[in-house]
Amino acid sequence: MSENVDTRNAWLSKDDISTMRARMPIVYVEAVPVRVDSEGRITHVGLLLRAMPDGSISRAIVSGRILYNERVRECLVRNLEKDLGPVALPRIPPSPAPFTVAEYFPDPEISGFHDPRQHAVSLVFLVPCDGDCRPSQDALDLAWLTPDEVIRDDIRLEMTSGHDRLVRMALAHAGCLF
Amino acid sequence: MSENVDTRNAWLSKDDISTMRARMPIVYVEAVPVRVDSEGRITHVGLLLRAMPDGSISRAIVSGRILYNERVRECLVRNLEKDLGPVALPRIPPSPAPFTVAEYFPDPEISGFHDPRQHAVSLVFLVPCDGDCRPSQDALDLAWLTPDEVIRDDIRLEMTSGHDRLVRMALAHAGCLF
Amino acid sequence: MSENVDTRNAWLSKDDISTMRARMPIVYVEAVPVRVDSEGRITHVGLLLRAMPDGSISRAIVSGRILYNERVRECLVRNLEKDLGPVALPRIPPSPAPFTVAEYFPDPEISGFHDPRQHAVSLVFLVPCDGDCRPSQDALDLAWLTPDEVIRDDIRLEMTSGHDRLVRMALAHAGCLF
Amino acid sequence: MSENVDTRNAWLSKDDISTMRARMPIVYVEAVPVRVDSEGRITHVGLLLRAMPDGSISRAIVSGRILYNERVRECLVRNLEKDLGPVALPRIPPSPAPFTVAEYFPDPEISGFHDPRQHAVSLVFLVPCDGDCRPSQDALDLAWLTPDEVIRDDIRLEMTSGHDRLVRMALAHAGCLF
Repeated sequence: MSENVDTRNAWLSKDDISTMRARMPIVYVEAVPVRVDSEGRITHVGLLLRAMPDGSISRAIVSGRILYNERVRECLVRNLEKDLGPVALPRIPPSPAPFTVAEYFPDPEISGFHDPRQHAVSLVFLVPCDGDCRPSQDALDLAWLTPDEVIRDDIRLEMTSGHDRLVRMALAHAGCLF
Repeated sequence: MSENVDTRNAWLSKDDISTMRARMPIVYVEAVPVRVDSEGRITHVGLLLRAMPDGSISRAIVSGRILYNERVRECLVRNLEKDLGPVALPRIPPSPAPFTVAEYFPDPEISGFHDPRQHAVSLVFLVPCDGDCRPSQDALDLAWLTPDEVIRDDIRLEMTSGHDRLVRMALAHAGCLF
Repeated sequence: MSENVDTRNAWLSKDDISTMRARMPIVYVEAVPVRVDSEGRITHVGLLLRAMPDGSISRAIVSGRILYNERVRECLVRNLEKDLGPVALPRIPPSPAPFTVAEYFPDPEISGFHDPRQHAVSLVFLVPCDGDCRPSQDALDLAWLTPDEVIRDDIRLEMTSGHDRLVRMALAHAGCLF
Repeated sequence: MSENVDTRNAWLSKDDISTMRARMPIVYVEAVPVRVDSEGRITHVGLLLRAMPDGSISRAIVSGRILYNERVRECLVRNLEKDLGPVALPRIPPSPAPFTVAEYFPDPEISGFHDPRQHAVSLVFLVPCDGDCRPSQDALDLAWLTPDEVIRDDIRLEMTSGHDRLVRMALAHAGCLF
């Protein structure tokens, strides 16, 4: 999960956030960006290439911390635009319920979701994007892979933190886990 | 729920379908069409005005029988186009799981969902529509109402069969039941 | 999916049901029976060993046709008792929405879910069972496997019709797909 | 939402938590406790009577902050035991996904969910309880109301913070919103 540029509380210093991270779970949203056909079927999954909290350069889904006074929906849009650019046209789901919740811990053994910096509780959404997506800011690349490709062992090995599991859970949720 | 024009099995006569309806549950899809804003929040719910199985002219959601060899996704698109026209641009959800299942019975006391013709098991979806919607075929009118309007008592009284409940369940699912 | 003993409409002859199966989708419920710990985590998945519609003897989940005038909840209880015995104590979920919908077709290429007899639309539920489960009626055996075991290739090969996919989708839904 | 006794990080002083609450969203779980029949149908909803963050004594659902290094499932069990006693036998759902997410803000206009102390993001679950429930710790009373009773205007007026909406959303999710 990547650091955000905190537009709303820039006064939250690096020290402040470190202190909080050692004491409380931090709440995140994550989004698996997908291309869908006219019947809603997933045709492609979008994976970023980025520096991850564990120090690796890995393929990853969209991720960001919910800011003080920010709505979950706003946070999703803000992070999708941050990572996929301003004309990605994300289709935020009408329901506020995530399809799964990922719990990241500094200890990778607890849940399989790993973040060396913090205990994060992440609401994970599947978000169709219709527009022109291009990696922006921290991301080095954006690749659109078919469901078949994205579950291949070589692709899975390019993901860390548990993002490969989240991608497969998203596919299962969408009825296209083979 | 309305009768379909069976393009795939036109040989299923009125008599045949009557016979089956007396013996087995019939599987339907239903869709609550909505307008959403850029953050996925429902702004309007679309209600058709149509002749209903109970003989009334009522406000209703989109509804249709799944045909032999037809996919749930195809059936949703076909019925949304039948009722809202060919350029409604429905956003079929990526997940095949409905947000609720409505069970219609000839006896209105069993579940509160009533269809005098049959026992129907209906998979109900919430479907954002971005395009130009106009009532087609059997529908007499299409009205877009805000969440506040659609739960008003006078509007609810214009719905039969349990469609008012499905609309409120859809709003609850989307986090906007007040 | 197995044939039911139709207690409510025994007058539905083998010929009648064959006729209908050739013309309309038939609506089913299916249940992935699981053991859970006190925090709701899946510890074991229950798999039956039974004769399948494709002629094989395979591991399978609980399955049955919804009868005329039968509620989805009743149908789940009836089929769980039929397959797991009368003291399985199934915990039917409060929500009527299945976690996924499986569409079975005579042509195995359409969806990956295959039933040579019919087009079936199946509402699939995850059902914790607390009681004493023993295979009854048509089932030859019942095995409780851990999530790790149930996704092993050798176990997956003992399932047909797409039941291995449903089991993995159930695990993904429960957050325990590795 | 009530204050927790922090067994895991008692060193988090009142001042520390106040500081954090002014800067970051705090992540909570909430549970709507229900009695269900053998087919999973809700028969009763459990409402506590307690002191609320807004200073009122109101009817409320179960609620608590997720502690550092605590799993969502553990947090649900801990708070259900805290409020309903040690033998409530809560049935934590197998899926980690809440049925809805409630966003509480100090400003009651933002979302309709109100907490004067903080911005809280709450994962809300529906939890059947089979055991003997008795209010413990902070709660003054526990009442089990039928779905019909719990949505009555006089009962709704006894809830604050938006808990009446969460109860109706839970009923809608369970298919029993009338």
